[in-house]
Amino acid sequence: MTQPRIILPAGTTETALIDGISAAGAAPELMAHTPSADVEILEFGAPARSPVTPVSPNGCPTPAAVTRAVREVCGFDVTVVDAGLAKPTSVPTVDLGIEPGDDIRDSVAVPDAAAIFDRAHGYGASLPDGEDDIVIGETVPGGTTTALGVLTALGEPTSVSSSLPENPVERKRRVVDEALAASNFTAGDCESAPFDAIRAVGDPVQPTVAGIAAGVLESTPAASVTLAGGTQMVAVAAILRHAGIDAPLEITTTSFVAAEQGEQLESACAALDCELTVTDPGFADHEREHVAMDRYCAGEAKEGVAMGGALSLVPESEMAAVRDQFETVCRRLGIESDGLAERSGFDPGSDTDTPSRAEPE
Amino acid sequence: MTQPRIILPAGTTETALIDGISAAGAAPELMAHTPSADVEILEFGAPARSPVTPVSPNGCPTPAAVTRAVREVCGFDVTVVDAGLAKPTSVPTVDLGIEPGDDIRDSVAVPDAAAIFDRAHGYGASLPDGEDDIVIGETVPGGTTTALGVLTALGEPTSVSSSLPENPVERKRRVVDEALAASNFTAGDCESAPFDAIRAVGDPVQPTVAGIAAGVLESTPAASVTLAGGTQMVAVAAILRHAGIDAPLEITTTSFVAAEQGEQLESACAALDCELTVTDPGFADHEREHVAMDRYCAGEAKEGVAMGGALSLVPESEMAAVRDQFETVCRRLGIESDGLAERSGFDPGSDTDTPSRAEPE
Repeated sequence: MTQPRIILPAGTTETALIDGISAAGAAPELMAHTPSADVEILEFGAPARSPVTPVSPNGCPTPAAVTRAVREVCGFDVTVVDAGLAKPTSVPTVDLGIEPGDDIRDSVAVPDAAAIFDRAHGYGASLPDGEDDIVIGETVPGGTTTALGVLTALGEPTSVSSSLPENPVERKRRVVDEALAASNFTAGDCESAPFDAIRAVGDPVQPTVAGIAAGVLESTPAASVTLAGGTQMVAVAAILRHAGIDAPLEITTTSFVAAEQGEQLESACAALDCELTVTDPGFADHEREHVAMDRYCAGEAKEGVAMGGALSLVPESEMAAVRDQFETVCRRLGIESDGLAERSGFDPGSDTDTPSRAEPE
Repeated sequence: MTQPRIILPAGTTETALIDGISAAGAAPELMAHTPSADVEILEFGAPARSPVTPVSPNGCPTPAAVTRAVREVCGFDVTVVDAGLAKPTSVPTVDLGIEPGDDIRDSVAVPDAAAIFDRAHGYGASLPDGEDDIVIGETVPGGTTTALGVLTALGEPTSVSSSLPENPVERKRRVVDEALAASNFTAGDCESAPFDAIRAVGDPVQPTVAGIAAGVLESTPAASVTLAGGTQMVAVAAILRHAGIDAPLEITTTSFVAAEQGEQLESACAALDCELTVTDPGFADHEREHVAMDRYCAGEAKEGVAMGGALSLVPESEMAAVRDQFETVCRRLGIESDGLAERSGFDPGSDTDTPSRAEPE
């Protein structure tokens, strides 16, 4: 009788503002609104207090629109955790006292990484029986760059995805190299010290997701925790393993991340003893043309806001209904099947190949 | 495709600690947990971070258990607003910066009543289209005493309900008289000045409910707002009318409040131009004996945590399923059909005729 639950830590970081890493060309004050707008779309079906709908100038809406479409068809409960939001949101949030992250090129990016993990652990452990099959997602602009940072610091094989069709991975690597140097670390220096890695080159959403997962797993041995996301969740799994947590873990992500990452994703998950599930919304097979689905198929956005995990809740027989509902959600957000009806606070003159939704994965 | 939504401002006040008004005999630190536990039961089906399940020594569980049973059968979204919680909760909340209320016998009970209304108004106005048919409930121990206080200060006919089978209304009147005197007011002095009334003798949940209602109604003229509660919502309706808001209002409450209040409730609603709907869970007709249902039928608890409003979402054909599910929720809370299996933090030696859930209505 009770519904599944998706827990969604949502945060921001100054790292997202680095030129060319995420939403270069979109105004920084819009990017800071992205997680707040994402959770409003997930909770209400449209932005509320947030002044912007995260869509790219190409008409590719945030993955929150897909996750919301699943919610409208299948139903699930949502718990948003404030993991460093920079802007107000109308959505109720769990307050664990988490501040936005700093630029990883500073000497410290997340000063209280270990304390955030502890508080999130306490939160996960406090959830009652019946709340032990949980899906944890994320929304944090710049999150794949901080994922690369942490994986590099931990000495794990590093491959991360991007919300851009052309992944600026070399640029990210240069940023991470600079970030590690600023913290007096080189690759692998933080092996078995995951909170040092996050503190130096991570973001506040990472210890929040990891802490909730660890709290649930340690308080309920029979619990099942799904990390809903792509390479950002690989980084979280690595954090958990380097923290000595060997409970079963599963990563569920979208076919769009899997297509980009190929074997690398599978081998990363295998190395972390982490089951991998790939979900496909079937956008390529949809019976009508829709610009948003086309953009996803072209490699934009790919994942975020627990999109892959939400799709795993959809019975195959309902997937066409989810695609239809995605069209409805898009229309509500001002995106018609042939493109943007209105730009919802967007400057149409801004850079045309960078989505305002910065690095959902 | 989207579900109905219940918005639940939850708060506490020192007024609840007055002897004989609410949970006399239960330890004060338990009573302060009641709203936090209520919202956890509503959101998770059981308490999480809260150390106590609000049930009376007679085995009468908090109305949150009924509202949760409706949710498990019919499904609705929940938005909890922190309207002055004193204890932590695992449930995500909207943070409007609201503190617990003071004792109404102090000169000031809610120092920033007007500012709370303004912030709540902004919140209500921020809700997007599609969120305009809302149900607003409450959970605040001592709430009927502060309702009596505000109604008296506004010069409205005063009759309030109680969670006790024997309503200690004369005791409440004496407290309110003392409270008004402490603020240098007499009955009717705050006519057309509802925030003065709340500031002097109200609680922080009142301006929160009123503000959200006003924000929704003023931003969306076609909106429909249901105030889910009994005489506490009569006080909120009076606050709105005295604030000059003449939009349509509806109060939905339970048959248990209606049975106690009789004509007085109808005439109070009529005087405030407020439609009244009474909902009946059919506990008297349930096919099996259940101590919790018996207690409600005997006049305990009666209303709270949007119970009456939640029941209004239930089609008549589903009401038996709600009762069955209520048995399931009770069992989860340690209440078997013939009584308490465990007392969940309760002192069984405490006063036997006063519920720990203090004054849900």
